[in-house]
Amino acid sequence: MEWRIAARPTGRELRVEDFSRSESDPSTQGHPAPGEVLVRTLMLSCDPAQKGWMENAGGYAAPTEIGDIMPAGGVGQVVESAASGFSAGDFVAGPLGWRDVGLVPASVLRHVPREADSPQLQLGLLGSTGLTAYFGLLRIGLPQPGDTLVVTGAAGGVGSIVGQIGKMAGCRVIGIAGGPEKCRWLTEELGFDAAIDYKSENAKRRVKELAPEGIDILWDNVGGQMLDDLLARIARKARIVICGGIARYQQPGRPAGPANYFNIVFKSARMEGFLMSDFAAEADEGRARLLKWYREGKIIYRDEIVDGLDTAPQTLMRLFSGGNTGKLLIRVAEPT
Amino acid sequence: MEWRIAARPTGRELRVEDFSRSESDPSTQGHPAPGEVLVRTLMLSCDPAQKGWMENAGGYAAPTEIGDIMPAGGVGQVVESAASGFSAGDFVAGPLGWRDVGLVPASVLRHVPREADSPQLQLGLLGSTGLTAYFGLLRIGLPQPGDTLVVTGAAGGVGSIVGQIGKMAGCRVIGIAGGPEKCRWLTEELGFDAAIDYKSENAKRRVKELAPEGIDILWDNVGGQMLDDLLARIARKARIVICGGIARYQQPGRPAGPANYFNIVFKSARMEGFLMSDFAAEADEGRARLLKWYREGKIIYRDEIVDGLDTAPQTLMRLFSGGNTGKLLIRVAEPT
Repeated sequence: MEWRIAARPTGRELRVEDFSRSESDPSTQGHPAPGEVLVRTLMLSCDPAQKGWMENAGGYAAPTEIGDIMPAGGVGQVVESAASGFSAGDFVAGPLGWRDVGLVPASVLRHVPREADSPQLQLGLLGSTGLTAYFGLLRIGLPQPGDTLVVTGAAGGVGSIVGQIGKMAGCRVIGIAGGPEKCRWLTEELGFDAAIDYKSENAKRRVKELAPEGIDILWDNVGGQMLDDLLARIARKARIVICGGIARYQQPGRPAGPANYFNIVFKSARMEGFLMSDFAAEADEGRARLLKWYREGKIIYRDEIVDGLDTAPQTLMRLFSGGNTGKLLIRVAEPT
Repeated sequence: MEWRIAARPTGRELRVEDFSRSESDPSTQGHPAPGEVLVRTLMLSCDPAQKGWMENAGGYAAPTEIGDIMPAGGVGQVVESAASGFSAGDFVAGPLGWRDVGLVPASVLRHVPREADSPQLQLGLLGSTGLTAYFGLLRIGLPQPGDTLVVTGAAGGVGSIVGQIGKMAGCRVIGIAGGPEKCRWLTEELGFDAAIDYKSENAKRRVKELAPEGIDILWDNVGGQMLDDLLARIARKARIVICGGIARYQQPGRPAGPANYFNIVFKSARMEGFLMSDFAAEADEGRARLLKWYREGKIIYRDEIVDGLDTAPQTLMRLFSGGNTGKLLIRVAEPT
């Protein structure tokens, strides 16, 4: 089975009809050519950036065409290899796409441990989710002990890790999330100092109460009105890490920018974006440290695994409606 | 004579009626108390920030009250001193305000050379205008040889210096200004590589033609639609130095933010603001270097001096209508 891009969801919500399903193309399932590997997909990552890839937004990924296999990061198991260093049965991670099996150039794959929890760990905590949190906070946010860190989308895959690394760095951490259950998880299980339920509370006012001296680091996953409101609350020399804009991705037309951007002048503040690939050379170091923290219980990592490639569009759409807590994954098959 | 704030021009254009004129208050013209100096104003600086001070925008300056002397930086001459280190006849620079004479705490004054060109040089090239350009470009913009630097409001006091320092740093410099005369000045006299007349050309398209590989440093004095357009043209790892937002200052209501802010994610770019006071400790170093470049002819500095404190409101208003080229100054009196 495979899913291809049928339509670009530019300026609107994702729909099931944006994807077309078919049986896997036999031409992709022959024997691998030299340098290739035939990979059976075990698990796929759901990431907000996937909608951007479908739209060719920003030109930051390889451009997609209508009819392409829907791109997605995944973990799989080698069925047959014509590439040195890869053998049948190996676990590999890389851009597998929405298909149950396929030929992949070995150059875009990396080995991951052949352990039961590899698929979910490698796609979440040790994949782009964890590395985005790690490098974005530590290299762009530059946390200092005593800083107030505010995280939007705090119960998501990236946000929940950002807040926990912020605690380790000595920050006071305030998470913003939707609903009492997510907020309870942040404060009672992850150790956030406070959580704001934006669905029932006025986040702008609550941040002023909770952080009267202002926000030193603003980690933004959502954009839109929330970003604008929080820019009114930044402290001098604040760092605003722009990671995502989930409120923008679904909005019709061209969403407005944050009117309060000019506050970065009054506050001598910095707003910065980044891509996980900026830190590719350091990725192994980041993974090693995240794994150590996880094994030591210093980072609690949660994922939500939905079974079935056949419902991949519906699963991905949940990302944009706030339906998940922690990293959202699609299980395609069990390892052999 | 003195001018006081009569109304706050928040969310609209400046008007003459925002200022009230009166004869100087005799209570400010007695003999100085210990630590004070009586200063006769020679020349006053016109700065976009003055409108923000009247509005208490951003809270980055000492708050103003209706009825306060209109704040302004100036150069004056000491009439009488009760502060050590200051003597009658000395030239001093500091926050003199719109009045022809007044008592000033010596702690906010600095000595400047008793030379004929001191007033205009100290308020322009060696004042907040030159220092803003110097520190903003070199410390925030971080120019590298071969970078493409785009400057909006390029024919203004700050912009014209930014472009010239950018040339010294090895950048390719494109200025955006209003009208053929300003553009000619930029390319033929200041050595800019190109100039775009936004009044007669499509700046977004022209920047794409002139800088097909994108903008490495964007120096923004204007905000508004121009900033949004140019954010669509940034290169990877671009630095966007937010210096001013002159398009915003006059706009009714709450102007929109730049919708393309999210491009800083796709391009791993940084948008940063600053205040000249951030670099107060280094100001003398900056002044020394700017003065050396000026004496060597490496920086061409132009100002436009308008005579008369009595027309100060009209003169300041010209700043916001693009009526001046180079630094705008008000001459109040000649030195003795």
